[in-house]
Amino acid sequence: MAKLSFGMIGGGEGSFIGDIHRMGAQLDGLGQLAAGCFSRDYGKSLDYGRRAGLDEDRIYRTYEEMAEAEAGRPDPIDFVIVAAPNHIHYDCCRAFLEKGIHVVCDKPLTNELEQARDLKALAEEKDLLFGVTFVYSAMPAAWFMKEEIAAGRIGEIIRVKGEYLSDNLLAPNEDLDGGMLWRIDPAKAGKSTCCADIGVHCQQLISYVTGLSIRELSADMTVVGEGRQLDTDFTASLRFDSGAKGHMWCSNVAAGKYNDLNIAVYGTKGSVAWSLEEPDFVTMSGKNGQTVRCRVGKSGGSQAGAPFRLPAGQSEGWVLAFANIYRAFMTALISKKAGQPFARNYPGIDEGIDSVAFVEACVSSWQNGGRWTEICRKR
Amino acid sequence: MAKLSFGMIGGGEGSFIGDIHRMGAQLDGLGQLAAGCFSRDYGKSLDYGRRAGLDEDRIYRTYEEMAEAEAGRPDPIDFVIVAAPNHIHYDCCRAFLEKGIHVVCDKPLTNELEQARDLKALAEEKDLLFGVTFVYSAMPAAWFMKEEIAAGRIGEIIRVKGEYLSDNLLAPNEDLDGGMLWRIDPAKAGKSTCCADIGVHCQQLISYVTGLSIRELSADMTVVGEGRQLDTDFTASLRFDSGAKGHMWCSNVAAGKYNDLNIAVYGTKGSVAWSLEEPDFVTMSGKNGQTVRCRVGKSGGSQAGAPFRLPAGQSEGWVLAFANIYRAFMTALISKKAGQPFARNYPGIDEGIDSVAFVEACVSSWQNGGRWTEICRKR
Amino acid sequence: MAKLSFGMIGGGEGSFIGDIHRMGAQLDGLGQLAAGCFSRDYGKSLDYGRRAGLDEDRIYRTYEEMAEAEAGRPDPIDFVIVAAPNHIHYDCCRAFLEKGIHVVCDKPLTNELEQARDLKALAEEKDLLFGVTFVYSAMPAAWFMKEEIAAGRIGEIIRVKGEYLSDNLLAPNEDLDGGMLWRIDPAKAGKSTCCADIGVHCQQLISYVTGLSIRELSADMTVVGEGRQLDTDFTASLRFDSGAKGHMWCSNVAAGKYNDLNIAVYGTKGSVAWSLEEPDFVTMSGKNGQTVRCRVGKSGGSQAGAPFRLPAGQSEGWVLAFANIYRAFMTALISKKAGQPFARNYPGIDEGIDSVAFVEACVSSWQNGGRWTEICRKR
Amino acid sequence: MAKLSFGMIGGGEGSFIGDIHRMGAQLDGLGQLAAGCFSRDYGKSLDYGRRAGLDEDRIYRTYEEMAEAEAGRPDPIDFVIVAAPNHIHYDCCRAFLEKGIHVVCDKPLTNELEQARDLKALAEEKDLLFGVTFVYSAMPAAWFMKEEIAAGRIGEIIRVKGEYLSDNLLAPNEDLDGGMLWRIDPAKAGKSTCCADIGVHCQQLISYVTGLSIRELSADMTVVGEGRQLDTDFTASLRFDSGAKGHMWCSNVAAGKYNDLNIAVYGTKGSVAWSLEEPDFVTMSGKNGQTVRCRVGKSGGSQAGAPFRLPAGQSEGWVLAFANIYRAFMTALISKKAGQPFARNYPGIDEGIDSVAFVEACVSSWQNGGRWTEICRKR
Repeated sequence: MAKLSFGMIGGGEGSFIGDIHRMGAQLDGLGQLAAGCFSRDYGKSLDYGRRAGLDEDRIYRTYEEMAEAEAGRPDPIDFVIVAAPNHIHYDCCRAFLEKGIHVVCDKPLTNELEQARDLKALAEEKDLLFGVTFVYSAMPAAWFMKEEIAAGRIGEIIRVKGEYLSDNLLAPNEDLDGGMLWRIDPAKAGKSTCCADIGVHCQQLISYVTGLSIRELSADMTVVGEGRQLDTDFTASLRFDSGAKGHMWCSNVAAGKYNDLNIAVYGTKGSVAWSLEEPDFVTMSGKNGQTVRCRVGKSGGSQAGAPFRLPAGQSEGWVLAFANIYRAFMTALISKKAGQPFARNYPGIDEGIDSVAFVEACVSSWQNGGRWTEICRKR
Repeated sequence: MAKLSFGMIGGGEGSFIGDIHRMGAQLDGLGQLAAGCFSRDYGKSLDYGRRAGLDEDRIYRTYEEMAEAEAGRPDPIDFVIVAAPNHIHYDCCRAFLEKGIHVVCDKPLTNELEQARDLKALAEEKDLLFGVTFVYSAMPAAWFMKEEIAAGRIGEIIRVKGEYLSDNLLAPNEDLDGGMLWRIDPAKAGKSTCCADIGVHCQQLISYVTGLSIRELSADMTVVGEGRQLDTDFTASLRFDSGAKGHMWCSNVAAGKYNDLNIAVYGTKGSVAWSLEEPDFVTMSGKNGQTVRCRVGKSGGSQAGAPFRLPAGQSEGWVLAFANIYRAFMTALISKKAGQPFARNYPGIDEGIDSVAFVEACVSSWQNGGRWTEICRKR
Repeated sequence: MAKLSFGMIGGGEGSFIGDIHRMGAQLDGLGQLAAGCFSRDYGKSLDYGRRAGLDEDRIYRTYEEMAEAEAGRPDPIDFVIVAAPNHIHYDCCRAFLEKGIHVVCDKPLTNELEQARDLKALAEEKDLLFGVTFVYSAMPAAWFMKEEIAAGRIGEIIRVKGEYLSDNLLAPNEDLDGGMLWRIDPAKAGKSTCCADIGVHCQQLISYVTGLSIRELSADMTVVGEGRQLDTDFTASLRFDSGAKGHMWCSNVAAGKYNDLNIAVYGTKGSVAWSLEEPDFVTMSGKNGQTVRCRVGKSGGSQAGAPFRLPAGQSEGWVLAFANIYRAFMTALISKKAGQPFARNYPGIDEGIDSVAFVEACVSSWQNGGRWTEICRKR
Repeated sequence: MAKLSFGMIGGGEGSFIGDIHRMGAQLDGLGQLAAGCFSRDYGKSLDYGRRAGLDEDRIYRTYEEMAEAEAGRPDPIDFVIVAAPNHIHYDCCRAFLEKGIHVVCDKPLTNELEQARDLKALAEEKDLLFGVTFVYSAMPAAWFMKEEIAAGRIGEIIRVKGEYLSDNLLAPNEDLDGGMLWRIDPAKAGKSTCCADIGVHCQQLISYVTGLSIRELSADMTVVGEGRQLDTDFTASLRFDSGAKGHMWCSNVAAGKYNDLNIAVYGTKGSVAWSLEEPDFVTMSGKNGQTVRCRVGKSGGSQAGAPFRLPAGQSEGWVLAFANIYRAFMTALISKKAGQPFARNYPGIDEGIDSVAFVEACVSSWQNGGRWTEICRKR
């Protein structure tokens, strides 16, 4: 079985996320990096690509050039990973889709909702796979919670609570590195810093785990830090179609927190909770008291379809969650190339669109004094 | 030094809170129970009072009778503890104040804001002390957090988060005992179940710890459970005078939770957090990462004025927090009786009024679709 | 019902434990402090006694004088609390027993095993009650664990682990206060610092919770700190009659620890664990994975005979545990005085003897290079 | 830069550890699986190798055949990973070393101490690299602790405590799968189950983190479960060269535990602790109280030489720790092949020998009633 080959846009020197994508995409031995445009600075891109063992003629100056050149090769890349800043996502994804190359894009999918829908239309027209790396829903604990809730273990959902807390924007702008600087720049980050960067992880995880759809929301945003225009902290009240309620708080200015993503779901019969600070444990409670700390892993509970790779007690973590997405994406792609039926067991363009719609609704509600705002459901 | 004598209204058989008040009031040996009307059922009241060693002629049929009779004795009680359901607070407190007897009342002070202000006016007119048992701000950890924040340890406050979660109303009405049943009865509980019963603890603790005043709020309430009219769960967004923001969630229908009161305060330089599940530890963080778990106790940090009674590592808990309030109240009362100056180191009628105003604002905001609603500051 | 009256030896100014005994003994309103010899310095004793509201003629210069005088009064104290340093326990307890006064003594009961047995013989001869304040076995969590184990919930016990860790002797001698100084002085503390002071709490709690008897042990002690002769840290391997094994580590030089008493019991079907750092939670596990965190309190599990005073979610803590012992002791004493049958629901002289035997065996094993040493069972 | 190629012995279908080795060895893109003998059943080995994309002529019936054949190829594997059961390690490692192929072997290195020393002699004679996958010392937290201790942050070490607890042998033999069955079979596992399988991880981690050498130990082993001859649970008291003491408890019959490896090191100035249940946090304390929870990761503390791959807040876990060993091993091997100097930044044959010596000393002490037994230091 021949390995798939893939290319990367962005993710070079100084991008912490690039290495993670590459490790995740290569962990299971299904694919291999073959081409890339890792930086807008061609010298840096060259350096990086050479160290990764690429042929020099597949290290490109621009993504446009890369899409063109790869499409013209006899052995083009099978798919491209887009790990560049937000404002590049749309044009870049379009460029590859137009050349018939499958795409995996980081979140948020695009800065404008119409762009996200446009990418979907194009991918469908070209019959191409499109993945979006909502990595947290690919963690074993997310699968575990989804299963438990779907099985009715906590009854009917009453309330969902979500948080994603960091303090990486408590420092003044002059102390930020490039990876944070573009996130506060409206020209690159779009309409939102906090909501678009980490809020969407929280929203997507809630959707995945509960299976509920947000009908409307009321959001309040806060811009902390001199010389900033976009939210660095926001809260949102959620109302789901089912009648359940929810509330979220995400922040880049929560001192002492670092990637503290956590959710809790309370139902009529029990509750379930999880935090990225203890990624391999899910806490479940019934009524009136006792709390069960469940290890998520090969010995923990039901197994069929479980994404666990390790024995219980061993932490799976971020890289393996990326690998779960890439394994699912590549498994689908291999089948598709072979003309076989396949399942889409990875977060895709619909999840990407929903998250952009969520960001737009939050910003709109905030700009209207917290008005209850419907989320646009059109995909 | 003669002990003070006190009486009790309510708190008899079946009331879990009555024993706590009595233990708290007697722990330091400053006062002694001397009279009471422990139940509307005189037989039960008699039984209870006898077991507590009271003379039969000081066990009363009604609080009106008790106020009258005690005021006419040569050795009247020095103060009365009102531990009856909410709707009795106002009339009962008035009855004793009018007879010149000092009062300690449980929260919420009254069901109507005007009543609370009226009690204040009467207490001032009669020159009487009035305590309200907001017990959580009397815990050593609350003092510790207040000191750290006041000392500037976390910088300027950006956001405050508070929760008070229980699941004692997840059961249907037919499975509730009397102590919960009156809490869902508008005729007794007033306008609110969750907010008036536990929300006020969270609000008062936030005010105490941060020193901030809430300017306006937007609240959303939920009525969970058949045959109920009042909130059993609510969220509120808070805006403080200082520009800081806050959000609260309190619930009686959060499966698996039981008196999980917790707050966290995030500032420009650090954060501080506490949960009643670990009452003797306060967690402090600076920017970027490390978290310090501080034991609150005789060896933990600065000491002057500290309410710690035990060596670090020993849990102080609820009863000692009640005792802290009673000790402060009785110490003030002893000085007052002796004509000496005294400090009011216990939560009093102003805090009581603020909490009733908070409940009114929450209910009003909810009834108006979450409209931002100013809190009435008049005391 | 008349209150019992009691006296105190030691526990005055500067003794943190004295206040705890007094709060515990008075919390339930069954007894009242009536006499005392609170310090070897009569002036200090007078000051302390006056502040506690005692008549001056019942504040004594020596415990011998107090035993003599009280026994000669028409209204003698019913019992005496001995909260003085270890080396005083034996003579002091004897003095009161000989005068027919019941005794509650702090741990360790005596510095020599023969002394402990002698006290038992005398108490039996005089038909007097004798309590020893092993406070941790009077905590609700201890009761909860004992019940669960006795009910077979964890199967047959395989191994028991216990720790009691503090760092109150990491400082050099010149930085210690009086309360720690006598604990490292062989003339006062006896043969052991760590084992006699905190090790016995761990040993007694293990015995109480498991119901197992230690047959033999192998101990290793360490003397950390200049100018010290006695153990400040020790480990012991235990073999129980049942064939189960155990191991303990106690230390006064474990940096960062402060009264971290914890035990865990592992059986063929499950395990149970508890730590004083979270006194109101017991953790139970079955085989293969899931862990249940049980809140100990009024809503948590079986109730009959439970020593819970508070609703689940409220910490009971040290003072209430002392109060549990005093309540049980005084309840028994009241019945005994009334000529009624009574139960001994408090730790007594047998537990006191066992702990002195434990200390002797540990020291002896250590002095013999860790030789397996049988514990003397004679009481 | 050409990738290294490697082969595997064992680790096929049904071996959970094989996949981990492969993921770890391939994560960084430095090496690629090229040959293997994955099972004693050739059919299974073929299946497995084909799915991994191997040429059929490099899927072997025996490791002897593989060593012979690979050594004779123009493109032999660069190194072999030995992930078969313990009793195969010695002969298998010898076979490849003799053919000039570098080796990475799982722990315990061998079942007999002489065998371990013999492998060292052979590797030195042939000038070959030899790694042993003590995976826990390759976790970022281990590095962090080692750095803090070496920097004197906790002063002079007083005591070290280590545990490795699981319950995977609480089930009776008939319920065990093959992966556990060979571990209780003396013909395969050697002299010990618990100590050789998990005890050595704890011992090696302690050695790595503290830099201390064990001089002598006193061990007690327990054989739990019918039809078993080897230890399933053991405790050991340790004395280090420095005068520090230590104690360990490891168990396969600790109900509710699953890979709970934890260590704590107490010094004269502070302490440091870590548990695999929270792999990305290290807890540090000074004297008297406060505890600091340090996130191990890119933003947490000093960075030079740090093995962190992820931003703080993301769990690195088991697979990345294996990858750290393989990255270090392959980096060294690449330099060696290029005739360049290289550092041995991976656990090697000396650590492997020490662990076998540790197992032998524990078993010997136990067989002699817990006699203090010196560890053989000869390597």
